[in-house]
Amino acid sequence: MIELLTPDKLRALKPRYRDFMEQHVYPEELKALSTPFKTLEFGWLKNLREGAKKEKLWAPHLPESMGGLGLSLLEFAQISEILGTSPFGHFIFNCQPPDIGNQELLHLFGTEEQKSTFLNSLTEGKIRSCFSMTEPDNPGSNPTKMGTTAIKKDGQYVINGRKWFTTAADGASFAIVMAVTDPENPNPYQRASMILVPTDTPGFKLVRNIPVMGESGEGWLSHGEIAYENCTVPEENLIGPEGSGFTLAQERLGPGRIHHCMRWIGICERAFDLLCKRAISREIKDGVKLGSQQTIQNWIAELRAEINASRLMVLDAAWKIEQQGAKAARVEISTIKFMVAKVLQKTLDAAIQVHGALGMTDDTILSFWYRHERAARIYDGPDEVHKSVLARHILKEYGMDTSKKQ
Amino acid sequence: MIELLTPDKLRALKPRYRDFMEQHVYPEELKALSTPFKTLEFGWLKNLREGAKKEKLWAPHLPESMGGLGLSLLEFAQISEILGTSPFGHFIFNCQPPDIGNQELLHLFGTEEQKSTFLNSLTEGKIRSCFSMTEPDNPGSNPTKMGTTAIKKDGQYVINGRKWFTTAADGASFAIVMAVTDPENPNPYQRASMILVPTDTPGFKLVRNIPVMGESGEGWLSHGEIAYENCTVPEENLIGPEGSGFTLAQERLGPGRIHHCMRWIGICERAFDLLCKRAISREIKDGVKLGSQQTIQNWIAELRAEINASRLMVLDAAWKIEQQGAKAARVEISTIKFMVAKVLQKTLDAAIQVHGALGMTDDTILSFWYRHERAARIYDGPDEVHKSVLARHILKEYGMDTSKKQ
Amino acid sequence: MIELLTPDKLRALKPRYRDFMEQHVYPEELKALSTPFKTLEFGWLKNLREGAKKEKLWAPHLPESMGGLGLSLLEFAQISEILGTSPFGHFIFNCQPPDIGNQELLHLFGTEEQKSTFLNSLTEGKIRSCFSMTEPDNPGSNPTKMGTTAIKKDGQYVINGRKWFTTAADGASFAIVMAVTDPENPNPYQRASMILVPTDTPGFKLVRNIPVMGESGEGWLSHGEIAYENCTVPEENLIGPEGSGFTLAQERLGPGRIHHCMRWIGICERAFDLLCKRAISREIKDGVKLGSQQTIQNWIAELRAEINASRLMVLDAAWKIEQQGAKAARVEISTIKFMVAKVLQKTLDAAIQVHGALGMTDDTILSFWYRHERAARIYDGPDEVHKSVLARHILKEYGMDTSKKQ
Amino acid sequence: MIELLTPDKLRALKPRYRDFMEQHVYPEELKALSTPFKTLEFGWLKNLREGAKKEKLWAPHLPESMGGLGLSLLEFAQISEILGTSPFGHFIFNCQPPDIGNQELLHLFGTEEQKSTFLNSLTEGKIRSCFSMTEPDNPGSNPTKMGTTAIKKDGQYVINGRKWFTTAADGASFAIVMAVTDPENPNPYQRASMILVPTDTPGFKLVRNIPVMGESGEGWLSHGEIAYENCTVPEENLIGPEGSGFTLAQERLGPGRIHHCMRWIGICERAFDLLCKRAISREIKDGVKLGSQQTIQNWIAELRAEINASRLMVLDAAWKIEQQGAKAARVEISTIKFMVAKVLQKTLDAAIQVHGALGMTDDTILSFWYRHERAARIYDGPDEVHKSVLARHILKEYGMDTSKKQ
Repeated sequence: MIELLTPDKLRALKPRYRDFMEQHVYPEELKALSTPFKTLEFGWLKNLREGAKKEKLWAPHLPESMGGLGLSLLEFAQISEILGTSPFGHFIFNCQPPDIGNQELLHLFGTEEQKSTFLNSLTEGKIRSCFSMTEPDNPGSNPTKMGTTAIKKDGQYVINGRKWFTTAADGASFAIVMAVTDPENPNPYQRASMILVPTDTPGFKLVRNIPVMGESGEGWLSHGEIAYENCTVPEENLIGPEGSGFTLAQERLGPGRIHHCMRWIGICERAFDLLCKRAISREIKDGVKLGSQQTIQNWIAELRAEINASRLMVLDAAWKIEQQGAKAARVEISTIKFMVAKVLQKTLDAAIQVHGALGMTDDTILSFWYRHERAARIYDGPDEVHKSVLARHILKEYGMDTSKKQ
Repeated sequence: MIELLTPDKLRALKPRYRDFMEQHVYPEELKALSTPFKTLEFGWLKNLREGAKKEKLWAPHLPESMGGLGLSLLEFAQISEILGTSPFGHFIFNCQPPDIGNQELLHLFGTEEQKSTFLNSLTEGKIRSCFSMTEPDNPGSNPTKMGTTAIKKDGQYVINGRKWFTTAADGASFAIVMAVTDPENPNPYQRASMILVPTDTPGFKLVRNIPVMGESGEGWLSHGEIAYENCTVPEENLIGPEGSGFTLAQERLGPGRIHHCMRWIGICERAFDLLCKRAISREIKDGVKLGSQQTIQNWIAELRAEINASRLMVLDAAWKIEQQGAKAARVEISTIKFMVAKVLQKTLDAAIQVHGALGMTDDTILSFWYRHERAARIYDGPDEVHKSVLARHILKEYGMDTSKKQ
Repeated sequence: MIELLTPDKLRALKPRYRDFMEQHVYPEELKALSTPFKTLEFGWLKNLREGAKKEKLWAPHLPESMGGLGLSLLEFAQISEILGTSPFGHFIFNCQPPDIGNQELLHLFGTEEQKSTFLNSLTEGKIRSCFSMTEPDNPGSNPTKMGTTAIKKDGQYVINGRKWFTTAADGASFAIVMAVTDPENPNPYQRASMILVPTDTPGFKLVRNIPVMGESGEGWLSHGEIAYENCTVPEENLIGPEGSGFTLAQERLGPGRIHHCMRWIGICERAFDLLCKRAISREIKDGVKLGSQQTIQNWIAELRAEINASRLMVLDAAWKIEQQGAKAARVEISTIKFMVAKVLQKTLDAAIQVHGALGMTDDTILSFWYRHERAARIYDGPDEVHKSVLARHILKEYGMDTSKKQ
Repeated sequence: MIELLTPDKLRALKPRYRDFMEQHVYPEELKALSTPFKTLEFGWLKNLREGAKKEKLWAPHLPESMGGLGLSLLEFAQISEILGTSPFGHFIFNCQPPDIGNQELLHLFGTEEQKSTFLNSLTEGKIRSCFSMTEPDNPGSNPTKMGTTAIKKDGQYVINGRKWFTTAADGASFAIVMAVTDPENPNPYQRASMILVPTDTPGFKLVRNIPVMGESGEGWLSHGEIAYENCTVPEENLIGPEGSGFTLAQERLGPGRIHHCMRWIGICERAFDLLCKRAISREIKDGVKLGSQQTIQNWIAELRAEINASRLMVLDAAWKIEQQGAKAARVEISTIKFMVAKVLQKTLDAAIQVHGALGMTDDTILSFWYRHERAARIYDGPDEVHKSVLARHILKEYGMDTSKKQ
């Protein structure tokens, strides 16, 4: 059925991306994960990015006018799955989070000045960026609880507050920061704004790369804790109208969530592939392969069914976004967010179990994802919030008054 | 995305079927379930069948030349879901199992004689039929273990053996029986044949309607245990070539399984609807509705996701059958068989829990399905077999020698 | 470890109960389930009850002064498990619900008059009783929502209201009814009282035996819907002080819940035994038994672990009740209620799956329990309520203010 | 009920261990985890070990004659749970794996020479040891597939082969190695022996500390890959009779598995405690605590039930070992191995989810266990093997021929 969504152009592109990953990325990814990111960024990854440009595979999600391939969301979804099969896939083609979201945001809502100063370098891959929204002392599931403020004074915003999980802040050229600009606004969803902050601005302090599941990481592979201490930028750095922070965040996070889901399908496929390869190669006794065990076969069957279903659901949500916009597809996006995250975790868990002790080591790519993608059920809204969004939407259609939150 | 699979003709038909179900079927179904089937068959159901013909909704799955609407499998899937929302839906439009499978079988492989004598009356709804394959002493999951024999003698087949779960044998005009005709054939899949047996043939004995989950049932709503005791029919009653029984069974059961899946989606939707209605109406304390509870909301969200995913998977399998035939889609059919059966059971269980004590009673339709659709994970191959089919297919592609069964 | 809880007296009793069940009950139970209950009550069951008395096995839970064996709760738990292996076990030894709860209630709180008139006949097995609390229009999970009233007038209570799931009302000699006697009491838990109502009182109407999972049942095996229409009894029929209904209900339901759990363990053991017997006897192909399949082995292992754990938990709760009383063990009782109900459902489901089509029929005892014990997760408080009780108790110890209900 | 297993001596000890952990260990454990192990070993941990000796809490599992407290297995289980609440608990009291297993082994089967040279220093905490059994190229689930050989020549064993997951090899003074000494023995379980190898023996090469879930670790907190290259030791270093390797391994691993389970219960309790503390402190909106959410309450209730059940099961297995020996309790040990490992993983997962983004960081202890205890379902036999052991034991009692392995 997916064939109905796959024009010839895409059909031709897919094997080319697949080949690129298999030839250039898989063989090096484990070594790369134990190499300082800066070394990669100006070496292996830089070369691959140049290769991607040469082969006309660069930035599949961007319009051709911006140097990309001009794929629709539905088309990009299918490429994104391929890139997701390695932790470095999206980076190589410049469609990695958080930059892809910032690219979209500036493309849609940036001023000409912002575009020429920041967006162009970003789409060309010359700089990296980050997105600074989550706060350690406030639940990400309730964006109206926000402690960071941006006070306008003399044509400038003075920003104070603390953010964390500002992914890839280490080495980024600028951050897009969510801060409260109008704390008294009776509508809590109109209190915050997005502001662009170059990371060399005084008062922007990368406190630490947060140790996450045993790794502080570095560069793009890190999550920063940022102190904004009287960090001051000109008011021209505001993105969109003042008070539009949450509206823009919805615009940014909605497709962002679908990007994650696409990528997760790719991880699932890679893990599933490793699982099957192990099942046919590992002997448990003479002449008996692991894959002959019914338990392993059950896992293979259930995972195949769930991954296939996940893909269809993600493409269905992408299709709805294309037809009706991200806002109309809000519920579909919540649905795939919790559904695919669950399948992802289950797949990685099974793949590790099939690898036995080897699965615990960093000698396969599985342990990297097992650790870092545990966050899939947390970031961009925990499962619990997305389930509630979906359920309340349904019950509202049945006439329930859902204004009274539990 | 489903819109891509829905031509205008189908778009127009769907609300008409839905209206029919809501106006004529739902209001009477509980009463009907406690009425002897014969009373229904010559009363309420007969009237509704006439209504269906009048409204040109009869036999959506049959070619127009046979009095039907000529829907493709993919189109019929969407109608079947609507009919599945009541236990009587498919019967009213003459696309109920086991008759729908027998219609297809005779249409494709019957002789002209067989068609004029049996098929026409069947498609017109004048008679019913049954399919006699499963045996009490042999596992349905291994069709090559079969005890019923048909010995050819003097231009006749003399059939002996015992079958059970011959659904709707009570009141059927004929059975299609699987029996071993060539016990010595080295290929066990070429030992059996399908033979058409009028139920008034001497030696065809309906031993009992098997008590299933507390109900023996009656008529179409029953499962017969049949003794074939020197039951003798002319050799012209053979369907297809001798020894082709399993080949035909695959032809018959493959789409049959997809019919079940379509129907189960309908059951899921109805149960989900009842669940939501209960959630918005039942007070657990003053002013607090059951639906405000997060546990209920979690169930609603998870079920919505899983039912939607199931539908996409079923349509995807139907699409593949249309493009490449049932044989090529064998694995997809196995996949949806175990996947949708699981979602079905989960949905019914949750709907009952939300109804509390009421859910245990026959005052809702849920308890009927809870009991009878427990079989969904068993008939036409238990989950375990379908998972194995899928897994072994995958592992074979990876190069594993799957000829050695565990 | 259980040996520590098993005095010699009990050690000697256990095989005697087990033998009784195996010799007299199992061989007849399927036939009995398809026999009208009245026939059993004055035939097979009557004989077995006399046998139980003769063999000094009668009423293990009652004090010796009341004709029983004087077992402690912890001792009775182990006998109850054995009786639970058949639907008729507890009835034969006169410790079946709802009578066992009513016996305890009258023993502890009944007047001498009530004891001599009702309790003695009940403990001797001459009459049956029922307990009338749940109402169709009010959630059982919130006992303070109760519509049935008992208005005192001229030394009599005039009762009006509708109850359902009054188990075993059909043929009972008296009901114990929960009714609101003081609707204005500011404490909602002090509004209701328990009143003893002989079923031949004018105004006591058994509207119907509710069809439950396809069966209306009869006699002890039924659940009545009762209309109280100006049903008038003398005020002496009050049990305990006026307004003590909920306090008494807690006393009655607390151990009642543990009785259910004990019984469920017995069901689990019987289903597990049937599962294993099927696994070693059913061939799936020549020489290969179902039990050789790893999926079946996984089920066996997981169920064995979960049933064992359930038993330890139930005995642990019984031990706490004996040491500190039912009130102190309220949380432990809630815990086993939802935990064992889950294991019960899982065990029955697996046992049916292993039996294949046979598991769907009434040719094994499994389908009876599959249908009727679906209620285990609903009656005496649904899982959701018991989980909440446990969690709120824990969080309160951590200092959370749980007075504000969600 | 556990009180029945808790003599006064133990009742007095428990709060003392608990206080020690709370005062000395919890406050430092996060910092310790990011400190090189050698620094800890000769600093913080050394001081704490001295404190443990001073407070007469040292080596609870060892006989008093060996400087310990002489607790029985059943008593030690309850202390072990307390120690398990921090990754450093067992180390501080010298009952950490792999040393505790080696202590038991040498105590039971070592020669006087081996005891005086190695065991005494080990029990005094002066040296550390390791156990070298698992091989990278052979499945741990099938111990008869072993590539490492020890060839006797001139009164010496010449050992060759490769081992991995030799936990704590880094810094250990000696290893106990499993190696094949009699490759032609028709009984594969009599081919291997255990040999004591000082780590400074030429030919003993620590190839690497295996990177496990992102960390290579160091010292006791590491898993070594060892090359044995003509590593030669005197034949006096044989432990027990030649060919007794698997028999000794069973002796060593059986209680070893129960040690793991005890420790896991401790981890569960600590994670549960952190979960509850987070639930009562984290606001999701003004005045609404996370713990008020029904989903969180469900997790709390289910985990409490499962952890309690796990503890009872572990104590029950320990009780059986004490009564009948480890061999008789083999099945009980397999049962708790897979059961508790599952509860452990579920508890850690839920605790992380409740902590949200914080749960992903190393700012709580949860992420350490989430990563490293993923191995709980793998080491000392994966779940799948232990389930099979249990199921086959049960089916054998039902008469199934389980000699033919699947």
